[in-house]
Amino acid sequence: MSVGVGVVGLGLVGGSLARALQAAGVPVVATDPVSGGEARAAGLTIADDVAHLAANRPDVVVLAAPLRAMRSVAAELAEALADEPGWDPTVTDVGSVKGPVRDAVAEAGLGERYVGAHPMSGTEHSGFAASSAELMQGVPWAVTVTPATDPDRLLQVLRLVTGPLGGTAAVLTDELHDEAVALVSHVPHVLANQLLGAVAGAPVRDVALRLAAGSFRDGTRVGFTDPRRTEAMVTENAAWVAPVLRLAARDLERLADELDSNAPTHWFFDRPEPVRDRIGRAGTARVTGLRPGDATGAAGVGAAGTGLDVEAVPLTGDWPAELLSRCTRGAVVVALEDGTALLR
Amino acid sequence: MSVGVGVVGLGLVGGSLARALQAAGVPVVATDPVSGGEARAAGLTIADDVAHLAANRPDVVVLAAPLRAMRSVAAELAEALADEPGWDPTVTDVGSVKGPVRDAVAEAGLGERYVGAHPMSGTEHSGFAASSAELMQGVPWAVTVTPATDPDRLLQVLRLVTGPLGGTAAVLTDELHDEAVALVSHVPHVLANQLLGAVAGAPVRDVALRLAAGSFRDGTRVGFTDPRRTEAMVTENAAWVAPVLRLAARDLERLADELDSNAPTHWFFDRPEPVRDRIGRAGTARVTGLRPGDATGAAGVGAAGTGLDVEAVPLTGDWPAELLSRCTRGAVVVALEDGTALLR
Repeated sequence: MSVGVGVVGLGLVGGSLARALQAAGVPVVATDPVSGGEARAAGLTIADDVAHLAANRPDVVVLAAPLRAMRSVAAELAEALADEPGWDPTVTDVGSVKGPVRDAVAEAGLGERYVGAHPMSGTEHSGFAASSAELMQGVPWAVTVTPATDPDRLLQVLRLVTGPLGGTAAVLTDELHDEAVALVSHVPHVLANQLLGAVAGAPVRDVALRLAAGSFRDGTRVGFTDPRRTEAMVTENAAWVAPVLRLAARDLERLADELDSNAPTHWFFDRPEPVRDRIGRAGTARVTGLRPGDATGAAGVGAAGTGLDVEAVPLTGDWPAELLSRCTRGAVVVALEDGTALLR
Repeated sequence: MSVGVGVVGLGLVGGSLARALQAAGVPVVATDPVSGGEARAAGLTIADDVAHLAANRPDVVVLAAPLRAMRSVAAELAEALADEPGWDPTVTDVGSVKGPVRDAVAEAGLGERYVGAHPMSGTEHSGFAASSAELMQGVPWAVTVTPATDPDRLLQVLRLVTGPLGGTAAVLTDELHDEAVALVSHVPHVLANQLLGAVAGAPVRDVALRLAAGSFRDGTRVGFTDPRRTEAMVTENAAWVAPVLRLAARDLERLADELDSNAPTHWFFDRPEPVRDRIGRAGTARVTGLRPGDATGAAGVGAAGTGLDVEAVPLTGDWPAELLSRCTRGAVVVALEDGTALLR
């Protein structure tokens, strides 16, 4: 295969990625011990295991296993590599935390092949049955690097994301990714569980659920995710999640004190203004039934504050550092063409 | 007019209610000092002020003003009543807290005419421009009573809600309503503001917003509500909101401690299980783009745990107490027919 991709793990995200790549005409071979049969029936090319997947010698291997399985899957891939002399794949992933995945991949001896990746798209459902090509089409990705990241491998991943997948890519360090997604993904998952948990324990639970409407439905949606998956995500990113939770605890305690004493509470309700201003029109579009990723994706949130103009960065010199620097200030790669990255 | 309704205040909820009633063929006259002209252009019958609305002698007057204006609007209505001898309207409202509205209405001398009401439907937008008949069609309502509530007036409100508006009605005390909506509406609004506020203050804000996707969009949706409206709602219900916020603060602090020390966190992620189990299929339907109220409304959340069977309660004896008792255990009124209330 020419620019083939191997996908190891066919759950919600891996399954959706394999479907999206195949829909875009990219040769894909995938493997999953549980849902392989189901995926084959859905028209995907399935290998029996990682070793058989390796025999197809894809250019890029995406580790899409659950976080807790990342170490063992990386080890399997390393073993398969040893059995395929001359095969030189780039290894990437779709994990929701990046530091721990890089550690797992490095431990397996695959560190030099690795570029971190995380598509910011999902649902509260799990498994291949819930996967769809749409879930991975045109969504924002984080692509994480270190100073040691091979520029050619980074380019391969950026081409996949911005090309056949139609997404955007924020080139970030693992740390910046993990800190940012704690704020916009992991802590929202925690607070959704808090809302559900508070109702579950309340004497007025039955009445409350009869009165639950839009604010509860939306505020708790991701609280319907498999609790083990959410717990793994939060636990793996504990270092960044815990401080945001402590901040929330302090803020909510302060607000409760002020409510009890009729003190002013403007600070709490006005504090989000910069974000409300910035999201602006995308926020306004929120009620119109956008699918996951639309309102805050490629054309959404970030576009406002960073300017809509496209800037071209030539892929010469230490261009990965240049992309990292620009993305750290809020830009994203929207396309690659003629030795140039286009950022917005 | 025969079963006419007067609507005082044509913001998001009042405007939507007036549109829904008119769409159902109920004679409606409404007034609003700001959006009266806009509403007239939209085909509603508009009175210049409360006194002119009173001249139409509607059977039911709905106070749909902002919470902070409730006292003055109730006083205006009391004055208009004095000028219309023989007019005997029932007074109700659509306020998101019920105890304080009852106090305001009683202060104006309208307490005996009053039945509390709160439609569990809304969006993060404000004003008549954002209103629509759909927003008030087939949604769950709370209808609040005291032992002194006039059964005939209660029946009038229940008929409106379950008849032309196609909704369900949970007959509750003000206290039970205020406690329950703190859990399923007010605290979700607070946590949405917390999520937005934490990002607004973070050094990595720009990157975080570029990576924000579905969990952030849904978790913050109601955080895009006019902050003064949210603050008024939360402040008016401080007595019930504050304890839930303290509970959240304690839970989040404990979770942060456990994350920092690699202690087990199952309790936090498993605690919502009873609610996840109960919402079940409605939860599964959450991603299919239901409009506000659908997933958790009449046919949704509550139906599961309380049994889907319809029970008939005759409207004889102290039937308001009987409805209150059943609704306090999680039932709702779905229809009224032939001297009978049907509950589910």
